[in-house]
Amino acid sequence: MTEEEKVMALAGSIDEPDQAAIAAARERQSVLAKVPGSLGKLEDISIKIAGITGKVKDNDVRKQCVAIMCADNGVVAEGVASAPQSVTQSQTINFTRRITGVSSQARYFGIDLLVTDVGVAMDIPKDLYTDEMNTPDGGIPIQIVNRRLENGTRDLAVEPAMTREQAVKAILVGFEAADAMKKAGVQLCGIGEMGIGNTTTSSCLLGAITGITAEDIVGRGGGLNNEGLQTKYRIVAEATKRCAGMDTIDKLANVGGLDICAMTGAFLGAAKNHIPVVIDGFISIVAACMARELNPMVTNYMFASHKSKEIGYVAAMERLGLAPMFDLGMRLGEGSGCPVAFKVIEASCAHMSLMKTLAEGSIDDSYLDEIRKGNFF
Amino acid sequence: MTEEEKVMALAGSIDEPDQAAIAAARERQSVLAKVPGSLGKLEDISIKIAGITGKVKDNDVRKQCVAIMCADNGVVAEGVASAPQSVTQSQTINFTRRITGVSSQARYFGIDLLVTDVGVAMDIPKDLYTDEMNTPDGGIPIQIVNRRLENGTRDLAVEPAMTREQAVKAILVGFEAADAMKKAGVQLCGIGEMGIGNTTTSSCLLGAITGITAEDIVGRGGGLNNEGLQTKYRIVAEATKRCAGMDTIDKLANVGGLDICAMTGAFLGAAKNHIPVVIDGFISIVAACMARELNPMVTNYMFASHKSKEIGYVAAMERLGLAPMFDLGMRLGEGSGCPVAFKVIEASCAHMSLMKTLAEGSIDDSYLDEIRKGNFF
Repeated sequence: MTEEEKVMALAGSIDEPDQAAIAAARERQSVLAKVPGSLGKLEDISIKIAGITGKVKDNDVRKQCVAIMCADNGVVAEGVASAPQSVTQSQTINFTRRITGVSSQARYFGIDLLVTDVGVAMDIPKDLYTDEMNTPDGGIPIQIVNRRLENGTRDLAVEPAMTREQAVKAILVGFEAADAMKKAGVQLCGIGEMGIGNTTTSSCLLGAITGITAEDIVGRGGGLNNEGLQTKYRIVAEATKRCAGMDTIDKLANVGGLDICAMTGAFLGAAKNHIPVVIDGFISIVAACMARELNPMVTNYMFASHKSKEIGYVAAMERLGLAPMFDLGMRLGEGSGCPVAFKVIEASCAHMSLMKTLAEGSIDDSYLDEIRKGNFF
Repeated sequence: MTEEEKVMALAGSIDEPDQAAIAAARERQSVLAKVPGSLGKLEDISIKIAGITGKVKDNDVRKQCVAIMCADNGVVAEGVASAPQSVTQSQTINFTRRITGVSSQARYFGIDLLVTDVGVAMDIPKDLYTDEMNTPDGGIPIQIVNRRLENGTRDLAVEPAMTREQAVKAILVGFEAADAMKKAGVQLCGIGEMGIGNTTTSSCLLGAITGITAEDIVGRGGGLNNEGLQTKYRIVAEATKRCAGMDTIDKLANVGGLDICAMTGAFLGAAKNHIPVVIDGFISIVAACMARELNPMVTNYMFASHKSKEIGYVAAMERLGLAPMFDLGMRLGEGSGCPVAFKVIEASCAHMSLMKTLAEGSIDDSYLDEIRKGNFF
């Protein structure tokens, strides 16, 4: 089997959600001791989780991980990024030090990080690298998994960002990350990234799969000036045109990034492994859309976290048929929207597991003995 | 000092937020290792918390409590509630069993509940009552604090719901609850309620303080039919008219409820005690508005959680000058929106404490030794 055939086989191996569990979960939500629907999306989330795990109640989602794909993008040569390329390197390193946006939350909430270099341009200190795709447990220092396929991609404005073979390999890195999370017992994951220039590659890909005009997709990313914005419009418009008629992997190779390819694989891999997977911001949702291009079944395993400020986010969300849980005005990336979404999903599972039905909750005195004994259900 | 003078003295004793801490927090957010503003509301929250505690970093908000005020409302005689009055009694009891919406979350996340009967109509089993206003620690069974002032209020559609003296007493119960939380070391609290009919009393109060028409305030509460809705319009319109020219306490007494009075006191008391306080849904935000009527300074201590589906919510939010953190389509009450908001506030504090500034985060090798030793800061 070629690597490309492997990608197609893996992407095709996602199970349908468990319809019986979904029906049972919906039924239980309708008889819990509350007005049906009064918990809103917390009800919907618990029902979707049941479809993923096959269990209505007692879905434990406390073992959590954010997989962060790090790579550089040649398109920064066009002046479309507000930060220097060295930030990809320094933030990739900073993840190991637990001082970035997502890693400070991860440290606080006890969430694992799985940081992978799929194609950072600059050097990473050797002793921060590991070859083993493992999620670190609490106390173990975070290392950077070395899966670098290239020192950054080429400039998509003048040539294909990468070869089709590289795109395939990067997607497989994503599947590998998902498998590693499964092996580590991860019950809930998020997909984040670090890669200066990747709002441009994401915008190109979104244009390529939707045909939406550049003006309806492109924003200022991390904080772009007017000149950069005009350049970005032009690049995205040209990329969209260029990708017409290409298949999904060619689109990823031509105008995408190694980070987004790996994220695409990670979304598909999480679904294949029945791990509920949380979308972060704009780049993450575009990768989610690319995963959907390869297998629409993947959206049954996805949860949107926060509403990104990037203009194209809404179109991407519509394409996935999802809706964000919250809008905190975040636009940092890194997977930094995932931890709060994890807590919402936990709250949803707690309701489903710990609330009682009207029948179960009817008032009698026997429970008092249980309470006195400390047996809170 | 009369009880009324005591309420006024307590309400007047709220400190201004610490402007120096706010300025220092804003400055730190601008130099943390991210694009300024990219963490959106998580930045704003951490700055507001600094103003409350006087500390920029290391604000521990893990000791949490939801104070739930339970009372019945005579106005249910008009057919404005979708659930029978007995639900107030049964859910008040169910809080102790940790099986309701908020208490299942509280149990899961380790959040204390402080359940107070300010005026439930039906009997509560004696052995579930306590006279001591204490928040229960983790393992201790939840009891119901007995501060019942009346077996439910009178029907506000035909007479004042309670006397001015009762309203004052109920507000003092709220202050007492806030003091108890302070004494227990609570660092972050939420204000919830249980009281069939209290979307009507809330709507009346909101009309009374804003002058907004009933049609722009009133919703279907827990799930009201058309006839009940028309009745509710009429009652709210009449209540609004009747309250013209009254002071805040008279409004609370005439068309409010014992639950809302106690919640009003709890918001003011939390602020007096420098405890950040989270607003739940519609009834909670109307109580927050009533607290603001007594001292506008209180909003500096408040955080809005979820966007309620009740129509009047937006007007109430505008009056407070706040904005909700998330919209999960919840409309359960009980304080059930508070736990997720607590997690957002925790995430905000974690960022402020654990992210580094660009200067602190610059790459050198010395930190590697620290990581190897397991010293993550």
